[in-house]
Amino acid sequence: MLSKNQRKQILQLSKKKHRKTDGLFVAEGEKVVLELIASGWTFEFLFSMDQAFHPDAQLLKWEEMKQLTQFKTPSPVLGVFKMPKRSEILNEPITVAVDGVSDPGNLGTIIRLCDWFGFSELICSETTVDCFNPKVIQASMGSIVRVQCHYVTELADSLKSLDKPIYGATARGDSIYEAKPSGQASYVFGSESHGISPKVTRVLDGELSIPHFRGANQRAESLNVATATAIVLSELMRPPTQK
Amino acid sequence: MLSKNQRKQILQLSKKKHRKTDGLFVAEGEKVVLELIASGWTFEFLFSMDQAFHPDAQLLKWEEMKQLTQFKTPSPVLGVFKMPKRSEILNEPITVAVDGVSDPGNLGTIIRLCDWFGFSELICSETTVDCFNPKVIQASMGSIVRVQCHYVTELADSLKSLDKPIYGATARGDSIYEAKPSGQASYVFGSESHGISPKVTRVLDGELSIPHFRGANQRAESLNVATATAIVLSELMRPPTQK
Repeated sequence: MLSKNQRKQILQLSKKKHRKTDGLFVAEGEKVVLELIASGWTFEFLFSMDQAFHPDAQLLKWEEMKQLTQFKTPSPVLGVFKMPKRSEILNEPITVAVDGVSDPGNLGTIIRLCDWFGFSELICSETTVDCFNPKVIQASMGSIVRVQCHYVTELADSLKSLDKPIYGATARGDSIYEAKPSGQASYVFGSESHGISPKVTRVLDGELSIPHFRGANQRAESLNVATATAIVLSELMRPPTQK
Repeated sequence: MLSKNQRKQILQLSKKKHRKTDGLFVAEGEKVVLELIASGWTFEFLFSMDQAFHPDAQLLKWEEMKQLTQFKTPSPVLGVFKMPKRSEILNEPITVAVDGVSDPGNLGTIIRLCDWFGFSELICSETTVDCFNPKVIQASMGSIVRVQCHYVTELADSLKSLDKPIYGATARGDSIYEAKPSGQASYVFGSESHGISPKVTRVLDGELSIPHFRGANQRAESLNVATATAIVLSELMRPPTQK
C-alpha cells in the first residue's frame, strides 16, 4: 500500500530542486534498480509489482505504479535511492564532456557509451539535463553507477584546467576518420539544436566531424548527439587497423 | 478550428491498423513536416500554431495541438500525409536489416543513420515497429523520405534471396574492428532484449560484435541497438586508415 506522503514525495523527485533538497532520486526498471543495489547504492524505498523481486520491496498494484511513473507505461520495479557522494574530477587520459545536452534519453545513452568504452566520468555543463532525472537514469541502464557525472558552472574553464587539448564535435570540423587525434585529450559534444556554446568553442584546439556519405545535391542531414558520440568514441578507442 | 472528425481520425492514426485502412500517417515537428513537403510527399491536413508556417496550414491553439499529439509536449506543427507507394527492394551493395526492433525511437534513429551513411533502404522484419508510427517518423527527423523501409514476412528468406553474405550484430561475435567484412553483404541488427531471432540466426554467415573496454571483473554492459548500429555502420563505411 502506497501512502499519500510517499506518492507526493516520489512525484516531487521528478524535479531537480526536490532531488537536491531530499538528496534522493528515482530509478525505474528492474535492470537499473538491480544494478544500483548490486553496486551498493542505498535505497530509501523499493516498490515492486512482483512479490518475489526483493525482500525489502513494498508490493504495489499496477494502478499504484501508474501513479508514480514518469513514463507512459510503468515499470514493474521502482526504487528511491540516496544520491551518491560527489568526488573530484579524476582527469583520465581521455575526457568526454557534454555542453547543453537537454534530452534525457540522449544523456542516458551517452553515459552508457562512456561506460562501454571504459570511461569513469563525464563532464557536464550546467545547461545539461540533470543525470538524476528519472529518464536519464532509465536510459543509462545502470551505467550511472560506473560513470560519474560532474556538473560544472563554466565548462570552458573546467576543460582548460585539465591541461590537455580540447576537441569539439561539430558539423564543420575535420573528418574524424582522417584527423583522429592521439594521446590525452578532451572531447566535447554539444546539443543537437544549439551545438557547442560560444564560450566552449573559443577554447577548442580543434573541431572534428563525422563525414556523411550522401551526394552534395542531397539535403543536409544531421545525426543525433548520442549516435555522434557513439561513432566518435568508437573511432577514438578502436585498435589501429592491422591490414 | 479543429473538427471532431479530424481529431478522431488523427488520433486513430497512431494505430497501424488505421494507417493501413486510411493510407495516411501523422508527422509531428516542424523540421520533419517541412522535409516531407520539400520531398514532394502529399499532405492531407496541415496544422500549425504559427500563422506564418504554411499557407495551407490550419491555425490551431496549443490546447488543440495538445489533444492531437502522441508526445508529452505538442510540436508547433503537425501534418497528416499520404503513405508513399511501396517499391521493390533495390539490393544495394550493403543492405541493413532490423529484426524485431520494437522501440520507435531506436528505429527512427536507425533510419536516420542509414540516410547518413548513404543507404536508400532498410529491411524490417514484420516484428519490427511500423516505420509510420508517429514516434518513428519524429525520431527519423525526415530521413524517412530518403530511406525506404521494406517490411518482409520472413526476414531470413528475404535476406537469403539477396544472394550475398549475411552478418549479424551479436554479443558473442568477432570484433567488428578486426573481422570487418569487405564487399557486398547484409547486416542484421536484433532487438535489445531478444537479439536476432533463431530463424535469422540460422542463415547468418558470420557474427560481429563491438568489443567493450572494461575489465572482466566489471558487470556486463550492453549498448542500445541504435548506438550499436551507428558504430557498425561507421566501421563499415570509414575509409581505410592512411597511417
